[in-house]
Amino acid sequence: MNVAIIGASGYTGLELVKILINHPKFNITYIANSTGEQNVQDLHPCLKDVIDIEVSKADAKEVSKVADLAFLALPHKTSMFFAKELLELGVKVVDLSADYRLDLETYEKHYCPHEDKEHIKDSVYGLPEYYGEELKASNLVANPGCFPTAALLALLPFMDVIDADAQIFIDAKTGMSGAGKGLKEITHFGHLNENCHSYNPFKHRHMPEIEEKVKLLKDVDCQINFVPYLLPVTRGMIVSVFATLKEEVDVKEILNNAYNDSEFVRIRETPVDLKSTAGTNYCDIFVDRNKKALFINSSIDNLLRGASSQAVVNANIMCGFEEGEGIPKIAYVP
Amino acid sequence: MNVAIIGASGYTGLELVKILINHPKFNITYIANSTGEQNVQDLHPCLKDVIDIEVSKADAKEVSKVADLAFLALPHKTSMFFAKELLELGVKVVDLSADYRLDLETYEKHYCPHEDKEHIKDSVYGLPEYYGEELKASNLVANPGCFPTAALLALLPFMDVIDADAQIFIDAKTGMSGAGKGLKEITHFGHLNENCHSYNPFKHRHMPEIEEKVKLLKDVDCQINFVPYLLPVTRGMIVSVFATLKEEVDVKEILNNAYNDSEFVRIRETPVDLKSTAGTNYCDIFVDRNKKALFINSSIDNLLRGASSQAVVNANIMCGFEEGEGIPKIAYVP
Amino acid sequence: MNVAIIGASGYTGLELVKILINHPKFNITYIANSTGEQNVQDLHPCLKDVIDIEVSKADAKEVSKVADLAFLALPHKTSMFFAKELLELGVKVVDLSADYRLDLETYEKHYCPHEDKEHIKDSVYGLPEYYGEELKASNLVANPGCFPTAALLALLPFMDVIDADAQIFIDAKTGMSGAGKGLKEITHFGHLNENCHSYNPFKHRHMPEIEEKVKLLKDVDCQINFVPYLLPVTRGMIVSVFATLKEEVDVKEILNNAYNDSEFVRIRETPVDLKSTAGTNYCDIFVDRNKKALFINSSIDNLLRGASSQAVVNANIMCGFEEGEGIPKIAYVP
Amino acid sequence: MNVAIIGASGYTGLELVKILINHPKFNITYIANSTGEQNVQDLHPCLKDVIDIEVSKADAKEVSKVADLAFLALPHKTSMFFAKELLELGVKVVDLSADYRLDLETYEKHYCPHEDKEHIKDSVYGLPEYYGEELKASNLVANPGCFPTAALLALLPFMDVIDADAQIFIDAKTGMSGAGKGLKEITHFGHLNENCHSYNPFKHRHMPEIEEKVKLLKDVDCQINFVPYLLPVTRGMIVSVFATLKEEVDVKEILNNAYNDSEFVRIRETPVDLKSTAGTNYCDIFVDRNKKALFINSSIDNLLRGASSQAVVNANIMCGFEEGEGIPKIAYVP
Repeated sequence: MNVAIIGASGYTGLELVKILINHPKFNITYIANSTGEQNVQDLHPCLKDVIDIEVSKADAKEVSKVADLAFLALPHKTSMFFAKELLELGVKVVDLSADYRLDLETYEKHYCPHEDKEHIKDSVYGLPEYYGEELKASNLVANPGCFPTAALLALLPFMDVIDADAQIFIDAKTGMSGAGKGLKEITHFGHLNENCHSYNPFKHRHMPEIEEKVKLLKDVDCQINFVPYLLPVTRGMIVSVFATLKEEVDVKEILNNAYNDSEFVRIRETPVDLKSTAGTNYCDIFVDRNKKALFINSSIDNLLRGASSQAVVNANIMCGFEEGEGIPKIAYVP
Repeated sequence: MNVAIIGASGYTGLELVKILINHPKFNITYIANSTGEQNVQDLHPCLKDVIDIEVSKADAKEVSKVADLAFLALPHKTSMFFAKELLELGVKVVDLSADYRLDLETYEKHYCPHEDKEHIKDSVYGLPEYYGEELKASNLVANPGCFPTAALLALLPFMDVIDADAQIFIDAKTGMSGAGKGLKEITHFGHLNENCHSYNPFKHRHMPEIEEKVKLLKDVDCQINFVPYLLPVTRGMIVSVFATLKEEVDVKEILNNAYNDSEFVRIRETPVDLKSTAGTNYCDIFVDRNKKALFINSSIDNLLRGASSQAVVNANIMCGFEEGEGIPKIAYVP
Repeated sequence: MNVAIIGASGYTGLELVKILINHPKFNITYIANSTGEQNVQDLHPCLKDVIDIEVSKADAKEVSKVADLAFLALPHKTSMFFAKELLELGVKVVDLSADYRLDLETYEKHYCPHEDKEHIKDSVYGLPEYYGEELKASNLVANPGCFPTAALLALLPFMDVIDADAQIFIDAKTGMSGAGKGLKEITHFGHLNENCHSYNPFKHRHMPEIEEKVKLLKDVDCQINFVPYLLPVTRGMIVSVFATLKEEVDVKEILNNAYNDSEFVRIRETPVDLKSTAGTNYCDIFVDRNKKALFINSSIDNLLRGASSQAVVNANIMCGFEEGEGIPKIAYVP
Repeated sequence: MNVAIIGASGYTGLELVKILINHPKFNITYIANSTGEQNVQDLHPCLKDVIDIEVSKADAKEVSKVADLAFLALPHKTSMFFAKELLELGVKVVDLSADYRLDLETYEKHYCPHEDKEHIKDSVYGLPEYYGEELKASNLVANPGCFPTAALLALLPFMDVIDADAQIFIDAKTGMSGAGKGLKEITHFGHLNENCHSYNPFKHRHMPEIEEKVKLLKDVDCQINFVPYLLPVTRGMIVSVFATLKEEVDVKEILNNAYNDSEFVRIRETPVDLKSTAGTNYCDIFVDRNKKALFINSSIDNLLRGASSQAVVNANIMCGFEEGEGIPKIAYVP
């Protein structure tokens, strides 16, 4: 099946290329960014001798001639214009931006006016453990944000036993690659090395995404208080979810039951770490409690399970392939 | 005033040497570890040409001949034997171990049987912002743990407005130097680099220390749920305290009022970071809330404010000097 | 083809497992270390749900029952005992230790007395670009050291134009994984982080290995002066070779001619870096000169091209498979 | 003595502030950058509560009213305009840029046309071990580059015994702070972390600076071949100098004799490391040889001995103070 990658310059675009090169079912026929006129080897010198394909200036009509499905690794707002045009041309879309993740109203409150009101209502949220069935029939998948992926996979199994009147706190630590390849002060080596700090506490745009999905999936109104931290590492994300249980239940059993059959969630007996998931699509989860105080601890690779490999899992499901076809499982350890 | 450093081999011992070399009032007359027969320059090659003094095999009687005050940078249990002997010989003691930090009962529950029941009840907890008066008259100061220092300075100002029936969660991230200079798997570079993970969640020995001091200082019974994380950095500690407010109060004003006159607490308008306090005795604190959800964010140098420089502040106060005499204030930035 | 991995506890053992899991021709039937009685998932928790196989206590006879070829990722001296027994049982061996890399005399001078004098003389040095033909017929391959791999691939093409009377200097920087998973002071995070230093300058055991191979392959006697440095990174190796040219020749052309047909050597137009080869079997090389002063700059992944993936390339060649079958080419970037 | 710091926004400006705050003889009366209208605490948040002084828009006449000596931490070319004006107003200058380091001809070849031809010929090169006497009488000191400081201190003692017809190679590794606080791709965390690479091999502007000073001080024409590397650390510099001896002499004795009386050069018996000098003005040097092959190994803090603390040493000497007054000697270890 022929696929296109639109937005190949950034980290998630590179990860898509890396996964799809070796994918047994997908074949990359088109790679684009905003400028074109380069070989992908010049864009990413690590790909020298690995793949030889021109990078085009992104053009939806050209995509529709050579590909049946497109991955959009674009900034929000830019993405919706491409998605709309591609869908009208009959190309399936997996969108890695925020543009189709939220209800229209929530989106416009936290981002900007939406220019594709038609498709946003039909998009499926690409968290395979919870939307597997809907994904099979979908032409437009909104790939979740990295923080919501790690937080929701941790939190959702416990919503029935959590006291929703008590505060839920999420302390989420991410590697810097989530901030992208562009030059920013917070990702300058002199700033971040040997450092660690929070940013946008209680104000990050992934907070409403988590709240909305909890409401949709579990029909619970609760206040999610989300504090992200930047870690001095390139890759990986590790999350603490803190909540209050209604009663002192067996939280390990709940977790095991929730993900017993999940190919890409691993239950851990000890606290999770970044490195065991870096390079893979796994979400590792550990849970413990102190009387009624609940600690759920999840770890993902922010660029893979938090973006590109989850996008390919979604594409696999959309196309009727096995969920795990061509999906990386072997961590970069050491 | 002549002082001794017992336990000079480790990181906190080295930090004591580094501070005291340039201290205007204290004069190092004795340095010891468990083996002796070395120059301190051999023990810490970075001190070559900076200080020239023999390292002795630790001996309390020898200390009493040459020093009026001793800093003990020893493992718990070892420390209490030295402290006891030194106090009986008339030497003031600042103990950096856990041996005199807790009530006897709490100590024996979490550590081991105590061998100096006489002095433990007279020790003063060396958190200067809260025990400044008691420190002036004390001969035995129990220097707080690094996590309790950062957590208590953040939490204590808010205990009056926090709903003590709701869970309090502390997500505390520390640089690896807190785990010491000894070789351990968790501080092997191949394990920790590009990694991050929790350890002993809800079970760390600093949890009862925080609970006990909150109870003593604020007369509040509450459940503190403490989760420490290890960061891939050498030095520094950054803490999230999450709690629930009784009402939606002005938390910034509360924080300002609490530390308006404190030389070594800095209120920040933006989230704190590791590097602004690394190399100093400062505790930086930021606070914010989301309706009734409270986030207090503090940062210290775990080896300085969390150990050695706080020990020297305590010694300054015990000896009638200015709190800030010879105390480092200039961060290692960049 | 069934293969065994002896010595699965360390980093190179893990890398062998990771490569062979997905190898299209080799099938892992036996994994061993010195203790056994574990699942490989307990030995390397990152392999949870990826491979399910018991780790045996290493036993050559058991190997011969279930495998046709064995990879030995063992310490030197231990390795020769296993290799000898396996070869006598008809099992092909790729030995990652130093035991079969050198002439007997050179080996015994720099390591220890050799206990398998019979096989050492028949072993083939597993640098595929230079010993490809000999490897095809070999039953015992001595996998090169990481430093010699990077240094020889850089140096060998230029030996004809280098003034062998002038000194050749090699300044080689390695990630810490070369020092292994065992706890050592130099790989303690508190020591290595934000640090860099040389070790064993002019005295490292890889120096005679480089000199010997230059002599054997190019029939040139020259003095190689080798200085290794430890970098504060986990993975990767980058080498400066400095030499003096006989005349001011076109060094870029020489390099291109040398590796025009090599699948796993990439010529770079700009200085090489660690990350473009980390995770792959590539050796990247850049060359430049300042009049007669020559600078050759090579980079490899010390655990892969410097150990485990080169071992599998050698096994591929020994077994008549394509050199590149199942060999990693996609770097860990970012 | 009142001093000014012009160019306070960057790393070297910050280091000057940090040293001069605690200097017993110098008093900061003026701090400037190119925009002004800020408190230095806003420019460098780590200085909160440590120093309270306005940052001015740089103006030479204002400087001359309040200071007797100015440190210029400015880009080259900008610096010469300020220096010229300040000197004409009677203010002593320590210039941290390249503008007065070289002979006019060499400068214009490697940088740009010079606009202060009058003063360049009178400037003194601020390497105190070799220009101590000239510095005493100087009003204009050109502070050496970081690489030349580390390389010359290593190389100069051996010029008499080195074969100047053979190539001299310098492999110099620096922390990223030498590339400054401005955002650049090579200092983006995603690029540099877990990475290492050379840049401008044989073409760096510090190469002619080293050659010129060797010629001036030792009257030897030789070819210096300089290759800088970027390390994934913030601070520090470590250098390999490789040369060929005329004869097999006692190189350790030569080194000891050269720096026996030097306060800020430490001879090491084992290879030097970054961390023992980070935070200090020390240059650590180790030397070894393999027959006639010479390896000299030096380490400095690139921002201190390679810039700001050496500048203050030079100011001390220019003003008749002790060389070591207020100069940092205690490393940041761990």
